[in-house]
Amino acid sequence: MFNGLSAFPLTPMAGESVDLKALGRVVNRVAKAGADSLGVLGSTGNYAYLSREERRAVLEIAVEAASGVPVLAGIGAVRTRDVLVFAADAQNAGASALLLAPVSYQKLSEAEVFGLFDTVAGESDLPIVVYDNPGTTGFTFSDDLHARIARIPGIASIKIPPPASGEVAARVAKLKAGLPEETSLGISGDWAAAEALLAGCNVWYSVIAGVLPQQARTLVDHAVAGRNDLASAASSDLEPIWSLFRTYGSLRVTAALAEDLGVVPSSALPLPLHGLDSEGRESVADAIRQCGLEA
Amino acid sequence: MFNGLSAFPLTPMAGESVDLKALGRVVNRVAKAGADSLGVLGSTGNYAYLSREERRAVLEIAVEAASGVPVLAGIGAVRTRDVLVFAADAQNAGASALLLAPVSYQKLSEAEVFGLFDTVAGESDLPIVVYDNPGTTGFTFSDDLHARIARIPGIASIKIPPPASGEVAARVAKLKAGLPEETSLGISGDWAAAEALLAGCNVWYSVIAGVLPQQARTLVDHAVAGRNDLASAASSDLEPIWSLFRTYGSLRVTAALAEDLGVVPSSALPLPLHGLDSEGRESVADAIRQCGLEA
Repeated sequence: MFNGLSAFPLTPMAGESVDLKALGRVVNRVAKAGADSLGVLGSTGNYAYLSREERRAVLEIAVEAASGVPVLAGIGAVRTRDVLVFAADAQNAGASALLLAPVSYQKLSEAEVFGLFDTVAGESDLPIVVYDNPGTTGFTFSDDLHARIARIPGIASIKIPPPASGEVAARVAKLKAGLPEETSLGISGDWAAAEALLAGCNVWYSVIAGVLPQQARTLVDHAVAGRNDLASAASSDLEPIWSLFRTYGSLRVTAALAEDLGVVPSSALPLPLHGLDSEGRESVADAIRQCGLEA
Repeated sequence: MFNGLSAFPLTPMAGESVDLKALGRVVNRVAKAGADSLGVLGSTGNYAYLSREERRAVLEIAVEAASGVPVLAGIGAVRTRDVLVFAADAQNAGASALLLAPVSYQKLSEAEVFGLFDTVAGESDLPIVVYDNPGTTGFTFSDDLHARIARIPGIASIKIPPPASGEVAARVAKLKAGLPEETSLGISGDWAAAEALLAGCNVWYSVIAGVLPQQARTLVDHAVAGRNDLASAASSDLEPIWSLFRTYGSLRVTAALAEDLGVVPSSALPLPLHGLDSEGRESVADAIRQCGLEA
């Protein structure tokens, strides 16, 4: 489950409500395109903004629409008590694994983050993906902390943020050297995916695969088969989109892309988040043309 | 309401539950000591970790225990929809003002933060304190954004983080220059309070006043009366505590102080937060001795 392509679809909104029908269609489309797993309620899935009831409904719809493709469920929250509730709800909804970021309000210490993962792993039967995303959580993992958390029974994989340009292979090698052999290492930051997979990452936790699952599947197939040049080329083909991800953030760009490509009826995000402004929307339209993605 | 001493008591916990009896005692003690207002459900009050039901119960108890001293209610959340619910609950519970921080998961733009304050000010009848705390929210206000938000009808005050040492007076002067005359400017970061009040801040949004209200009252009285040396001395007297605030963060130190001084029965924080470790607890005991605060 923690290998290959893990697609993280967005959670479509109709105004301030989750559009569950659109969600089912998005998830089903990705599952049919051959994703190895689905990350539901990731950052792109707006988990941090959704109530318990909304998260539960999203997971129930997603598990059904995934038609047997394993669903990883985001369960992050600032309070451990809530994380445990979301973990139980995810298991009851049929999720196959949990994705947990150390979401914070007060700055967290390493001991506090270790304690969070230790507690959740001890209480849940599902394997856990450690979600390392300093940009949203405000918490930066040390390599030592990753190594210690990875040794907790039940911790299956680590989802890392994109290393700096030119440092991907070295970063992957250094982190892997400290991890147990069986820990899956996964890359996020789609622009770094090809390089990271070729450097030994086991899985691509992919935002773009929620909208362009075929293109992401092709990239992963090339990388896994050792067709390095073709994997790199598949990534380069999407560079106009990667550039927008780096400029505007992947959430807002993906929402606009999904709407423009007809994958979702609306690109609304939960307030206070706004979608891209008109300049950003024009850039997305340009990128669609440059990548040859017109419907 | 937005002048003088605004005390921000902690929300005492009994294990994972709010200790409402202890909360009532803490609030009543501070009100009796002459605070001009009470900030309930601030960062020190753990608002970000509490459910809607817990926040409502805290406010109801606090308003009663405050015996007429105005209560400012923290209403921050990552989603505007939830902020509006908390604002309505706070008004129903008898709060006199709202304290709103742009709590974030996805990074927020200036337009999004302006939109948040504009929406909440438009929907609530209560005056609003803009809570600027980049360390917990991940959002940094520009002076221009502060000036624009301050002009929204209903925005009454701004709670700023402590400026760097040696820059307090210049920072206060520069920010005030861009604000409407009637906007109250308040300082947080207790170690900067005396200097900021003497430089023209209208109010001290004070963590320590939740535990040591008499000492905080004295400092403010000296500052307001223009007894600069005495105000500075009142602050210097507490330097051993300020030093711990800067090292360990004010929440964890205040919780330990409150327990050691018998103000609350327990210094528990909501998990994943831990209290101070044994070294930190010893430092707190030392600071209590150095400040002559033994019970």
